[in-house]
Amino acid sequence: MESRVSIITIAVDDLDRMATFYQAMGLKRHRIDDGVAFFQMGGAILALFPREVAEPDAGIKFGKGPSRVYLAYNTRSDAEVDEVLAEAKRSGGRIVKPAGRAFWGGWYGYFADPEGNLWEVAHNPEFPIDETGNIRLPA
Amino acid sequence: MESRVSIITIAVDDLDRMATFYQAMGLKRHRIDDGVAFFQMGGAILALFPREVAEPDAGIKFGKGPSRVYLAYNTRSDAEVDEVLAEAKRSGGRIVKPAGRAFWGGWYGYFADPEGNLWEVAHNPEFPIDETGNIRLPA
Repeated sequence: MESRVSIITIAVDDLDRMATFYQAMGLKRHRIDDGVAFFQMGGAILALFPREVAEPDAGIKFGKGPSRVYLAYNTRSDAEVDEVLAEAKRSGGRIVKPAGRAFWGGWYGYFADPEGNLWEVAHNPEFPIDETGNIRLPA
Repeated sequence: MESRVSIITIAVDDLDRMATFYQAMGLKRHRIDDGVAFFQMGGAILALFPREVAEPDAGIKFGKGPSRVYLAYNTRSDAEVDEVLAEAKRSGGRIVKPAGRAFWGGWYGYFADPEGNLWEVAHNPEFPIDETGNIRLPA
């Protein structure tokens, strides 16, 4: 396995509602929109896929409640953390933890999308973000 | 919000066991290893973080059972799908769905890591992967 993740899928109950939220967050939905919503996220893809299709495809049932796999959006400044959290609230998300100082020195908070999927929003100066948006662990 | 995901975190029960699995899958663990495991994944980061720390940090309790947020590793060939699934089994993962032909024409299957987190492994010729491992939605 090479060191990459290709697609991050969120199994959704209400595809339209969830796609609307992520578009309101500023993401551009791809033209392929038949029963799925795709967003190009740098070198990876975010996919919203109906739970009722995903479950029989994998032959499993997803658990209820917040997902143990969750996402972080890192910013280039503390102020941008506040902006993204405010944008999430305006777009129909929920502030799970308001922005505050982290024990590791950064500034961060959490929101949940309309179906409760958790996102951390963080400014961590130790993990630089390049001009294309890629994040890098320290050398 | 710009179109990117910075960090994909898996909240784990057994950090050592999970880090060992992902290292056996070929991923290189970063030197920062105090209570966390980081893996550089192209322009994003995969983080294994103890559930008992993540839950109070966000002020939530994660649900039980497979996560609605799940990951896909896309390959450059059908054969590579089989190889990655075999590697997952050898490394202590579980084959959730053996490789087979997808309705969308590709070749794919699913495995779960030792704590049940789902990965799809897929060859989708419509979503090209460049030499750096970045995947791209069709134009």
